[in-house]
Amino acid sequence: MGSIPSPGTSPSNLMDEPLNFCSNCGASVALTIPPGDHLPRFVCRTCGTIHYQNPRLVLGCVPVWEDRILLCRRAIEPRRGYWTVPAGFMENGESLEQAAARECQEEANASVEIGSLLAVASVTHASQVHVMFRARLLDPEFSAGPESEAVGLYREEDVPWGEIAFPSGEFTLRRFYADRKAGREDYHFTVLDRPLKR
Amino acid sequence: MGSIPSPGTSPSNLMDEPLNFCSNCGASVALTIPPGDHLPRFVCRTCGTIHYQNPRLVLGCVPVWEDRILLCRRAIEPRRGYWTVPAGFMENGESLEQAAARECQEEANASVEIGSLLAVASVTHASQVHVMFRARLLDPEFSAGPESEAVGLYREEDVPWGEIAFPSGEFTLRRFYADRKAGREDYHFTVLDRPLKR
Repeated sequence: MGSIPSPGTSPSNLMDEPLNFCSNCGASVALTIPPGDHLPRFVCRTCGTIHYQNPRLVLGCVPVWEDRILLCRRAIEPRRGYWTVPAGFMENGESLEQAAARECQEEANASVEIGSLLAVASVTHASQVHVMFRARLLDPEFSAGPESEAVGLYREEDVPWGEIAFPSGEFTLRRFYADRKAGREDYHFTVLDRPLKR
Repeated sequence: MGSIPSPGTSPSNLMDEPLNFCSNCGASVALTIPPGDHLPRFVCRTCGTIHYQNPRLVLGCVPVWEDRILLCRRAIEPRRGYWTVPAGFMENGESLEQAAARECQEEANASVEIGSLLAVASVTHASQVHVMFRARLLDPEFSAGPESEAVGLYREEDVPWGEIAFPSGEFTLRRFYADRKAGREDYHFTVLDRPLKR
């Protein structure tokens, strides 16, 4: 839960993009707790605009074709060369399901129908929320998009478990297979609060 | 899904806070599609920082005490004087459940245990995602926080249906009662794409 950070620490609610100047008027900003608020915010010294920084949503899915799932090998940092379910930042103006399907199209040139909710991870150290759906691959046509160096369909025993890019991806895949064995489609919440070990 | 807006329109992915100047270096920004991207972004003309704008998360819950639920009458705009489930913007560094419980504490001085996922609304016109949980009020002690002008426990027949502040709140409450009648605790997704009529 939000708390006021000690001086000299990096406040967990402010670990976002650089905020040195007001995006409204261009003047400098000060880190201060606005009246009625309980957390420090970047506030413009000139026009008074309060610049809130909030968690970003990452949307993804597990695309299924018969007994295989689609995974992408990342062509970009972070975690270049590691494997991931297709996922990325949600854009303004789209729904959760549209974001998940768009990311699959962009990263794997693959068309999916989004299904049930599978996993939701509060990634607190990165101030992100990852939302993952089950999905049905509409046809087995796909290819690597610009952010992927390879894309493939994998059976459970062939999933490269030791080379999964992010903890939320491993959580998602573990729950996917556990539910599939049990004949369920539950949803699963988790909190991931530690950066990756390199 | 994101698409490139016509000139002169207000791009749906850019309806956030004012972005005239670079928050990193203070120089002016230009609206342009960065290399490898597919949507216009505000990009600094001097240091090149790309300023992404993404949907914000609003977290809330339906706190239950015996056969009643807790509702708050808003003391602030928008929709001052209308009723809402306790809800508000998620902060960096907290989990979804922590955000929902914190908002209930702030708006109603009420302590809850967060339960199952109830409703998720992609509020596309506002570039927000609203996530609502069921919750158990831990004791029937509560009072209006600074953003509420009244807080109360209501039976279903006493819910002020005509005075609910936001469509996501009405969606949440309707599904809550429908599930309760059916003896279920399902989750419900919706897309809300039109601003409120005033």
